[in-house]
Amino acid sequence: MIVVMKPRATEEEIRAVEERLQELGFQPHLIRGVERNVIGAVGAKLVELPIGLETMDGVDKVVRVRAPYKLVSREAKEEDTVIKIGEVKIGGPQICIAAGPCAVESEKQVLEVAKKIKHMGASILRGGAFKPRTSPYSFQGLEERGLQILAAAREETGLKIVTEAISLLDVDVVSRYADIIQIGARNMQNFPLLKEVGQSGKPVLLKRGVAATIDEWLLAAEYVMAEGNYEIILCERGIRTFETKTRNTLDISSIPLVKKLSHLPVIADPSHAAGDWRLVTPLAKAAIAAGADGLIIETHPDPQRALCDGVQSLTTENFGRLIGELIPIVGAVGRKMQHYSVQEYYHN
Amino acid sequence: MIVVMKPRATEEEIRAVEERLQELGFQPHLIRGVERNVIGAVGAKLVELPIGLETMDGVDKVVRVRAPYKLVSREAKEEDTVIKIGEVKIGGPQICIAAGPCAVESEKQVLEVAKKIKHMGASILRGGAFKPRTSPYSFQGLEERGLQILAAAREETGLKIVTEAISLLDVDVVSRYADIIQIGARNMQNFPLLKEVGQSGKPVLLKRGVAATIDEWLLAAEYVMAEGNYEIILCERGIRTFETKTRNTLDISSIPLVKKLSHLPVIADPSHAAGDWRLVTPLAKAAIAAGADGLIIETHPDPQRALCDGVQSLTTENFGRLIGELIPIVGAVGRKMQHYSVQEYYHN
Amino acid sequence: MIVVMKPRATEEEIRAVEERLQELGFQPHLIRGVERNVIGAVGAKLVELPIGLETMDGVDKVVRVRAPYKLVSREAKEEDTVIKIGEVKIGGPQICIAAGPCAVESEKQVLEVAKKIKHMGASILRGGAFKPRTSPYSFQGLEERGLQILAAAREETGLKIVTEAISLLDVDVVSRYADIIQIGARNMQNFPLLKEVGQSGKPVLLKRGVAATIDEWLLAAEYVMAEGNYEIILCERGIRTFETKTRNTLDISSIPLVKKLSHLPVIADPSHAAGDWRLVTPLAKAAIAAGADGLIIETHPDPQRALCDGVQSLTTENFGRLIGELIPIVGAVGRKMQHYSVQEYYHN
Amino acid sequence: MIVVMKPRATEEEIRAVEERLQELGFQPHLIRGVERNVIGAVGAKLVELPIGLETMDGVDKVVRVRAPYKLVSREAKEEDTVIKIGEVKIGGPQICIAAGPCAVESEKQVLEVAKKIKHMGASILRGGAFKPRTSPYSFQGLEERGLQILAAAREETGLKIVTEAISLLDVDVVSRYADIIQIGARNMQNFPLLKEVGQSGKPVLLKRGVAATIDEWLLAAEYVMAEGNYEIILCERGIRTFETKTRNTLDISSIPLVKKLSHLPVIADPSHAAGDWRLVTPLAKAAIAAGADGLIIETHPDPQRALCDGVQSLTTENFGRLIGELIPIVGAVGRKMQHYSVQEYYHN
Repeated sequence: MIVVMKPRATEEEIRAVEERLQELGFQPHLIRGVERNVIGAVGAKLVELPIGLETMDGVDKVVRVRAPYKLVSREAKEEDTVIKIGEVKIGGPQICIAAGPCAVESEKQVLEVAKKIKHMGASILRGGAFKPRTSPYSFQGLEERGLQILAAAREETGLKIVTEAISLLDVDVVSRYADIIQIGARNMQNFPLLKEVGQSGKPVLLKRGVAATIDEWLLAAEYVMAEGNYEIILCERGIRTFETKTRNTLDISSIPLVKKLSHLPVIADPSHAAGDWRLVTPLAKAAIAAGADGLIIETHPDPQRALCDGVQSLTTENFGRLIGELIPIVGAVGRKMQHYSVQEYYHN
Repeated sequence: MIVVMKPRATEEEIRAVEERLQELGFQPHLIRGVERNVIGAVGAKLVELPIGLETMDGVDKVVRVRAPYKLVSREAKEEDTVIKIGEVKIGGPQICIAAGPCAVESEKQVLEVAKKIKHMGASILRGGAFKPRTSPYSFQGLEERGLQILAAAREETGLKIVTEAISLLDVDVVSRYADIIQIGARNMQNFPLLKEVGQSGKPVLLKRGVAATIDEWLLAAEYVMAEGNYEIILCERGIRTFETKTRNTLDISSIPLVKKLSHLPVIADPSHAAGDWRLVTPLAKAAIAAGADGLIIETHPDPQRALCDGVQSLTTENFGRLIGELIPIVGAVGRKMQHYSVQEYYHN
Repeated sequence: MIVVMKPRATEEEIRAVEERLQELGFQPHLIRGVERNVIGAVGAKLVELPIGLETMDGVDKVVRVRAPYKLVSREAKEEDTVIKIGEVKIGGPQICIAAGPCAVESEKQVLEVAKKIKHMGASILRGGAFKPRTSPYSFQGLEERGLQILAAAREETGLKIVTEAISLLDVDVVSRYADIIQIGARNMQNFPLLKEVGQSGKPVLLKRGVAATIDEWLLAAEYVMAEGNYEIILCERGIRTFETKTRNTLDISSIPLVKKLSHLPVIADPSHAAGDWRLVTPLAKAAIAAGADGLIIETHPDPQRALCDGVQSLTTENFGRLIGELIPIVGAVGRKMQHYSVQEYYHN
Repeated sequence: MIVVMKPRATEEEIRAVEERLQELGFQPHLIRGVERNVIGAVGAKLVELPIGLETMDGVDKVVRVRAPYKLVSREAKEEDTVIKIGEVKIGGPQICIAAGPCAVESEKQVLEVAKKIKHMGASILRGGAFKPRTSPYSFQGLEERGLQILAAAREETGLKIVTEAISLLDVDVVSRYADIIQIGARNMQNFPLLKEVGQSGKPVLLKRGVAATIDEWLLAAEYVMAEGNYEIILCERGIRTFETKTRNTLDISSIPLVKKLSHLPVIADPSHAAGDWRLVTPLAKAAIAAGADGLIIETHPDPQRALCDGVQSLTTENFGRLIGELIPIVGAVGRKMQHYSVQEYYHN
């Protein structure tokens, strides 16, 4: 930690900061500059917390040197984390695809999608049973009945299941049915929920909040990991910016950046980023080219009649086309699809 | 609702949209333009939900005409809502001031602040017992013990209490102690929590999310109101923008705008907006000048030793100065302070 | 300047940075931390420019300690700058109001507005003769003919004139007619234009760019001042954020913040910030309450027929009402209107 | 254009809007809704300009139906524009790479880079002779001497040259040396400059402004095209958002989106987006995967000693590695490199 003093800070003010640092367990090192003085603070604290130094007389600003997260950092664990759910792996050389509808609407809808996406290369089925909706008048999900439908589809297809918990109280029931618990963008800083899924024993798909910095996103993962759950998949799904021609702005840079900062796998959600199915395929390709470990894609048998997010959902036909365009990109970055190699694809 | 067709949309595509609109209960009205056609949809639905029209062939975009919220709108209730908690009123001609520390740390700290702010003109005591913290390693609050300390301070001073619930499971215990339940910015779209406080029977202070549009903020209030709780105080506390010299950007325009769109009272939190105590007073004055019904101000007996948000906390002395500068502004907008008139102030 | 090394930086890497710093004229001070080492660089350079240290092996980041601007800073000149144009002062205890149409459309329009706003308390007439328009098909201004109309209005009313230069080539002709040259938001980083107005000998009204940080805004002023022109009025006119219910987001915090960082006067443009005349009055009041030295307000005799920005223009009647509401605020912050005291106002 | 009336608008107000629309040359069509009325306006105007309807009594909002640009739109010209400069093509099936230093510093520096990047697959040399710098104390460029150095490098290598004009007054001299004139992000709305390059007869590389919406960017291109210059290359280089871990946020979605809206070629500048050379390669790959027609990459023989933007510059070695990783992606999207096919590459 470095304390930058104001240009006209007095000797007394400097001394007071040095004393306060010692009181806090740091060792102060004064560097006298031409215009200003600076105090370096060396200490053994694991993480540097806010400690009010900014309010002291003569202090201009405090610069923290360490990353605020610890367990999720690449420094804590050098090798990539690979999450294994049966035969499905997220985070290794294979690219993992999750697909399915925004909301579970009926058994027929889910089964129809599940069979097709399985055949086309997905290994995980997504679908919301508990839905966080901006308006109280929107469809709020089938709840446990929705989870049962997903489980039936898993039974039938072998796909793994990812579905969202939106409340502490859902975590238990979601855990009983799901293979991966999703924490949605709106709940990225719902800390009691993060702690609860941290204790669930299930892998967690943690979406980035719409206005979350990368540091805040990694700190949210740190909340889960601090409870002992190391199986976290980070998901970039677009951030909120001034541009309104897309629903969100896919922060493509976050993918290589987070992979440098953390050992956790990172996937992308081009559907929520774009908000328009016509942009999903180019964004999916871009995400894989940038180093993403997988994708989560909204797919619906009849987007026009979807109860939620129809505009951004691919038909299963278009999902198949996406996979067809994706496979050469997967090869071009030296990786392979979870389910079949490029060779197989071209032999089909 | 208006459906804008693409310039080259065919007659069949137009017909398909008209039929789909009828199927959904709307009456379509085609307007043939020079370059494009447009279909107006007239119907009796309370709120226009997403219905997948954007995915139909030939459709360029869908423009919704109605506001997405209903109960919170000025159209639903023309006169201002005034929330009464004993003798304290929020939303009428009087300006209401809440103050206190970010977090409840000890009985001594809270009582000391409470007595002073009461004397200086505050009518509500703020203080967090359950703290949502970005880092899992930060102080997380005293929980029920914190609520008891707040209640003791109320006993002693007569101040009303506002404190945050961060989880469904806290709402019950917070309700037992607090006069107003705060929903923090990070939980503005925690819909299960909104529903729970909607059933709590207690007034709710609803902070705007850091990246929430005004529509989303009003829809969050609609969630609370749809459960039958009409006592909601909206709180502008700054939004996240590219500017980093302040913690957030106080969206001062949201104050007069929300007061046009809704009948609910609106207050401002200049402390979280600024993130620096030196900016709190000018922002507080600006908020009242713009039409805010009150303020919530972080005040701490010793900000340098605060366990949270010390940088943006006023000392009680500075809080007193703020009130001194605020009173002429309150008069200038034709309002008066909750506790005493300008005359009283100048006689003291 | 402080160079933060990576946790695993080697001794060679540290030595290389120290040597490079010496080569650049700095004196390096190594502080050995528990996890990382940090090198403080002390030196006599006026301003710390980018010097590629970030690209050296083992370097994590470089933290600059000094403000990047110099002449405009409060440290360079402690007392407030007051700009005097005849009897009009901008920056002292008096609040200065500029008003007028977005664009000069005709002699009749300008004279009508000028007489009324003069009577109501404005001391400066605004109006664009050279218009920067987002679309090439929009009205582009009357050019020199517009300047002549403004000069005629000055002749008739005694109002000072502020008008925009949008190109190097305009500066000469604008200088001949105007009392203050406006640099618009889109040109805040048009550096050749900044240099040119820096040599014009005329006071400059420098609007903040729509996405300019406060540092960039002050550096733009530094460009003007580095040419020897010390008469700069800064103007906050809203920044671009995710919120679309207002045209821009008035960054009200920038007003007190810039007044701390710089000695220059700061005014606000609530018209461009709001983009809606119904919000102009509350924002104008907020800006003065926050410490602004003046306002610039779009006023048009018939906004409905304005060739530009009609939506955000006040009628002269509404401008009069704004002034009526503003005067008590001006008094409440201990200042007075340029033209008449509150007493006079209430006696009229 | 659609005029949405307020819920309680009177018949007189509706009539007044209809009359005003007729006066403006539109034909009004009233649609009576359940809660509100809406007036569709059909007319022959090329572009719908702001006409003050929003200020009329009873009007809630005005929704424009047509795109504000015309010549640049895909509707005006269905097939992709391909810009040919000698044998170099931008916009067709080939991917075109521009590379070189941020600023021209010396003949040695430029020639060294030029020879290497030519050998590695670039077909255009970039380098600034006129530099727009945030600080007046930063290196401002070698001006005409810099252009001569670029021309000498073209002579020697056959590379085409792109370099920036930052002022009206530079356009003539830049035109004499450059093959493509660059308009930088800060000048995207410098309309006199846009008009001047529109008359220059040279292809224009138009960078997106840091806070420009896609509509504003296309309107800036419309300015150039309205002067008769149809050879415009759009360049996405990142937008300003709340995330500060990257210099800008590469808006990857803008690439496929602009290619749908316009016939113009689109390239990406991953260097300015990232602000860190370690992120340039993944972003370059993502841009091509998303459909970009080319890239512009900052490359410097010794980034550590670069006079500008060293942090984001690749060494020529790293540029070679980037091309090596890019080629498989280029193949995966069914395109080929300007200079050599994948086959050639692997045979070398």
